[in-house]
Amino acid sequence: MSGSPTTKDIGLRGVLVADTAISLIDGDKGELSYRGYDIHDLAAYATGEEVAYLLLYGTLPTALQLEEFTKILVAERRIPESLIEVLKKLPSTSSPMDVLQAAVSMMASFDPERQDDSREANFRRAARLISALPTVVAAWNRIRKNQSIVDSDPKLSRAANLLFMLTGQAPDEENAKDFDTCLVLHAEHSFNASTFAARVVASTRAHMYAAVSAAVGSLSGELHGGANMQVMRNLVEIGDPEKVEDWVKSKFDHHERVMGMGHAVYKTLDPRADLLRHISEKLARNTGEPKWYLMTKEIEDVTQREYRKRKGGEIYPNVDLFSASVYHMLGIPDDLFTPVFAIARVPGWAAHIIEEKFPQPPIKPELYRPTSEYRGNYCGQIGCKYIPLSKRFAAAK
Amino acid sequence: MSGSPTTKDIGLRGVLVADTAISLIDGDKGELSYRGYDIHDLAAYATGEEVAYLLLYGTLPTALQLEEFTKILVAERRIPESLIEVLKKLPSTSSPMDVLQAAVSMMASFDPERQDDSREANFRRAARLISALPTVVAAWNRIRKNQSIVDSDPKLSRAANLLFMLTGQAPDEENAKDFDTCLVLHAEHSFNASTFAARVVASTRAHMYAAVSAAVGSLSGELHGGANMQVMRNLVEIGDPEKVEDWVKSKFDHHERVMGMGHAVYKTLDPRADLLRHISEKLARNTGEPKWYLMTKEIEDVTQREYRKRKGGEIYPNVDLFSASVYHMLGIPDDLFTPVFAIARVPGWAAHIIEEKFPQPPIKPELYRPTSEYRGNYCGQIGCKYIPLSKRFAAAK
Repeated sequence: MSGSPTTKDIGLRGVLVADTAISLIDGDKGELSYRGYDIHDLAAYATGEEVAYLLLYGTLPTALQLEEFTKILVAERRIPESLIEVLKKLPSTSSPMDVLQAAVSMMASFDPERQDDSREANFRRAARLISALPTVVAAWNRIRKNQSIVDSDPKLSRAANLLFMLTGQAPDEENAKDFDTCLVLHAEHSFNASTFAARVVASTRAHMYAAVSAAVGSLSGELHGGANMQVMRNLVEIGDPEKVEDWVKSKFDHHERVMGMGHAVYKTLDPRADLLRHISEKLARNTGEPKWYLMTKEIEDVTQREYRKRKGGEIYPNVDLFSASVYHMLGIPDDLFTPVFAIARVPGWAAHIIEEKFPQPPIKPELYRPTSEYRGNYCGQIGCKYIPLSKRFAAAK
Repeated sequence: MSGSPTTKDIGLRGVLVADTAISLIDGDKGELSYRGYDIHDLAAYATGEEVAYLLLYGTLPTALQLEEFTKILVAERRIPESLIEVLKKLPSTSSPMDVLQAAVSMMASFDPERQDDSREANFRRAARLISALPTVVAAWNRIRKNQSIVDSDPKLSRAANLLFMLTGQAPDEENAKDFDTCLVLHAEHSFNASTFAARVVASTRAHMYAAVSAAVGSLSGELHGGANMQVMRNLVEIGDPEKVEDWVKSKFDHHERVMGMGHAVYKTLDPRADLLRHISEKLARNTGEPKWYLMTKEIEDVTQREYRKRKGGEIYPNVDLFSASVYHMLGIPDDLFTPVFAIARVPGWAAHIIEEKFPQPPIKPELYRPTSEYRGNYCGQIGCKYIPLSKRFAAAK
């Protein structure tokens, strides 16, 4: 192998782990494309369903292909009655991400073609997951509040239908379109921690449910998908645009991270953050409640100013900063922000799982099995002498 | 960074991803140590409980520490009644690994101290998972067969109690001891795919349940923990030691993998395979049913001979080859072999999750975020022109 990284390469930053044809991030230029299509074009012109098709199959669908794919997606929105019964047994205080992770694992048990791990079966499984996750999250949101479950409306898009199932009210067209754009913007982002976890699991030949469940678990962490909920909780805690400056300064004083700012890959403005900023601004105008947008914009400005002053560099908002205010203005409860992220990301995860299981020749599927640097133990490197229990006294550290 | 690997390094083989103090494998010498203690010593002298303590805390316990730890483990064997109710709602045909993955995720909802992610809380969570997983697997095995659940016996060790809860009969002392040794041999193995998946999930600050659930998903793949069940199914399919030779030759003829043979890290005999071979041989004598051991030994011998002849090198049995016959002779159903592997591995996973969340200074926790080589799409590298749906015709591949 040509030069293995040292353990200074913590977190595998910059380490190439695989080939991919799914997306490309240019962190220096702030560019993102899915299957070769610039994210700005997709956000402006494509629907969530179109983008899901693009990510899975590698090409934009024809009108007929999209019609067929949409029909399958609508049919797959139903989840088994037993799964609903299971959700009803869980404590109403459960974290929606924990519920979602468990539900994805349980979906395997209800898969009528579980034994088939062919490429075709995986595409069908992808459609099932893309459609069932919104139903699970919406059902859980109703169940925990002791509300009756809202059935899916087959006439609505995936995005509009999710808002409908969550709130019981069909969203207006403009809000539905904006939310659909949010799903597009979150649909795929290369080898982030959750996608990478999904690929590691899929590399053992585990099925797609096992891999997506792992991805959901990974996304739940506050350094990953959990950040959008943290941003919202910060906004609520701050409460007023005028208080942002002191709050941000105090974060810097205490060497704490300002959630929603900075990214492992982008060294300039994340194009998704830019697009979400516009949506947040627009919603602020339309709802007549500008506070959330204004606070968010102030967090961006003050953090950038303080960062320049104290650290002498640039920092930029990431996808989580503006999605928080957007989701809030769309009426989504803050602890569902991360599940919404997961819902949006399933097409990307599924595409990566299929790519991992069925790579383009000459690449063959291969189990991930990295190595580690052993740095010894209390007794020394290795060769510790085993002392029988009866003769052990001060063995504790 | 000093030389990132090329994408030839598929599966991160040989790539150092982190420091660790938990275990060391010397693949060339066929050596394995947990926290500095050779696996042979631990298999010969230590109990599963002692080894779990060693893996978690880094030192062997004193008699008093072990007593206290064992008391906690026994107390944590109980799982919430609601979780049992959930298991009863799942189809009886569900894969036990899918059920286990879902159950681990659901355990988060029942954790009384879910908001606390301190190091101490993680040690408590580890004990909870170490003890609850056997209960979940055993309960599921009874539920799916419409049998009443067997309550844990607080006088029995973790290993003996698992056999008891699975079968309803207390195992004889020698079998229980051998099974305990199996759990010790499977307790930890550095950065394999499931442990790595757990660390990737934990690196986002997701909780231990999310990370262990991901590990269970990863272990379920047939290239990882699922291999022991495959070995058993092969043994049943072969049926007779005399038929092994033809069967193995046919695998070679068809360029198929012989499950249980070969390992990504060991270039010589896996010490665990050697120890398990002895246990299998002993059980064959004690049970008076030598067939399973004999067939397994024959698979080892014939595969080695054929490999030498056809590929001109050496191949060795791995941990899955002999564990299959051992578990079978202990009366464990074949589709619980992989869940038993998971049960055995929880102490290792938990130790890695804690190490990932709380590394020794100067190392700081860091999100895994590798990168990938973009290899283009159908339309070319990037910059595909977005064509409106109405004007798309032969866009399909």
